Amino acid sequence: MQAIKDIITACDLAIKNEDFDGLMAHYTDDAVLVVKADMMAHGKDQIKAAFIKIAAYFRNSLTPTQGEMVFLEAGDTVLVLSQTFLASAKDEQAYSMDRRATYVFKRGAQEQWLCAIDNSYGTDLIGMSA
Amino acid sequence: MQAIKDIITACDLAIKNEDFDGLMAHYTDDAVLVVKADMMAHGKDQIKAAFIKIAAYFRNSLTPTQGEMVFLEAGDTVLVLSQTFLASAKDEQAYSMDRRATYVFKRGAQEQWLCAIDNSYGTDLIGMSA
Repeated sequence: MQAIKDIITACDLAIKNEDFDGLMAHYTDDAVLVVKADMMAHGKDQIKAAFIKIAAYFRNSLTPTQGEMVFLEAGDTVLVLSQTFLASAKDEQAYSMDRRATYVFKRGAQEQWLCAIDNSYGTDLIGMSA
Repeated sequence: MQAIKDIITACDLAIKNEDFDGLMAHYTDDAVLVVKADMMAHGKDQIKAAFIKIAAYFRNSLTPTQGEMVFLEAGDTVLVLSQTFLASAKDEQAYSMDRRATYVFKRGAQEQWLCAIDNSYGTDLIGMSA
């Protein structure tokens, strides 16, 4: 699934560069982003606003990268399991997180792959709700 | 997402009762089942054959149930994160496993929800490949 891998790399770069319009081109119109447990952003407007807030929270120094990835394909739908690293220089301290994320991609009308579900918390979300 | 919860309960019962034709009614034609790391079953014929082998392996005593579930909805696609318990009386010993599974459901042509990706290993699949 090199095509999806390339899109995720492009998204990581767009987040690092705060190119949120470029980032939104890779999401479906009805996509969902898990901001944190019990806080979901639905649709491109909410997702873009959430990424702007996240960037501000990390003092505009957030750099996501991916480690090992697993792709589970079912026709026009793909589940990506990915080791995600989040690095930041927030508060002048090196800061890093290691997550096991789940992303669902769907093939769009122009055959391009689009992210429909963006959940960087993976299955850790189970039990995190209030 | 009570509708999907009910389907997963029906699937667990069908596995317990070894009603594999009934079980297959809940999968898409191009569904993928993760049998184990590096072993995928694609499509209903392969998935049904895999469930028959799994049932035999567990001496026809496999009973899956679900604990806490999280549903992430994006239009006609839903990612389910689920605490899955597998109990078995294989070899006359009580046997149990606790997994954090990921399932992707899609809305079918008759508005019914169908399982497209069935991965009981969740993000544990990362790093399990050879």
